[in-house]
Amino acid sequence: MDPDQLSKHFVEHYYTTFDTNRLALINLYQEGSMLTFEGEKIQGAQSISNKLNSLPFQQCKHNISTVDCQPSGLSGGWVVFVSGNLQLPGEEHLLKFSQMFHLAPTPQGSFYVFNDIFRLNYGGDFVMLICG
Amino acid sequence: MDPDQLSKHFVEHYYTTFDTNRLALINLYQEGSMLTFEGEKIQGAQSISNKLNSLPFQQCKHNISTVDCQPSGLSGGWVVFVSGNLQLPGEEHLLKFSQMFHLAPTPQGSFYVFNDIFRLNYGGDFVMLICG
Repeated sequence: MDPDQLSKHFVEHYYTTFDTNRLALINLYQEGSMLTFEGEKIQGAQSISNKLNSLPFQQCKHNISTVDCQPSGLSGGWVVFVSGNLQLPGEEHLLKFSQMFHLAPTPQGSFYVFNDIFRLNYGGDFVMLICG
Repeated sequence: MDPDQLSKHFVEHYYTTFDTNRLALINLYQEGSMLTFEGEKIQGAQSISNKLNSLPFQQCKHNISTVDCQPSGLSGGWVVFVSGNLQLPGEEHLLKFSQMFHLAPTPQGSFYVFNDIFRLNYGGDFVMLICG
């Protein structure tokens, strides 16, 4: 599979789901999955879903700037690196972020998110906006 | 091994080497290693070293803001996610960047960089500064 197509497809699916049906993100994680969100470490699909659905904003829109992808060395796995910005309602500033995913294959020929690390490219007040 | 200690030690070593003895970075990569630098894909320790040593700046200083680390699922491997800024001589702006590494274990009990993806958190003129 072409890694650039694969990663763009995944990234589009991930952020569209995040922005329109955030509860469904749970399907992209499994029990061994890990999320580090602004330094906070969360493990397991249910806990990750709880975190993502308890962020202090309901509506948002992710705009993607760059997507880079490489095979991860884990058989059939991929690392995906994303940069972009996040629009929150009523905020004039776009929040630039970077995020990496390590996608691991499932026996059904699909993928799930094994590693997920998210960081805003800011500190201070901007982190308050998304972490509460 | 504590992942936070491991990743901070690696990150300190990597960027100190980059800033003071860039030719020695070749020792952190192997033949299967991959670098994506501002979208340009490079494979293999020698090619990666050539790229890093042909960047259009000689002196630089990396300042690290955040380091996040998770086990990668590859036996003994780690994903490391870094944000920080890059100071170039004569440039008043600090260039914010994000970078991810996938560290794979060596038979000798050490690590090498299997995946490396670097992006400036900017476009346009700033990319020209580091890509030439």
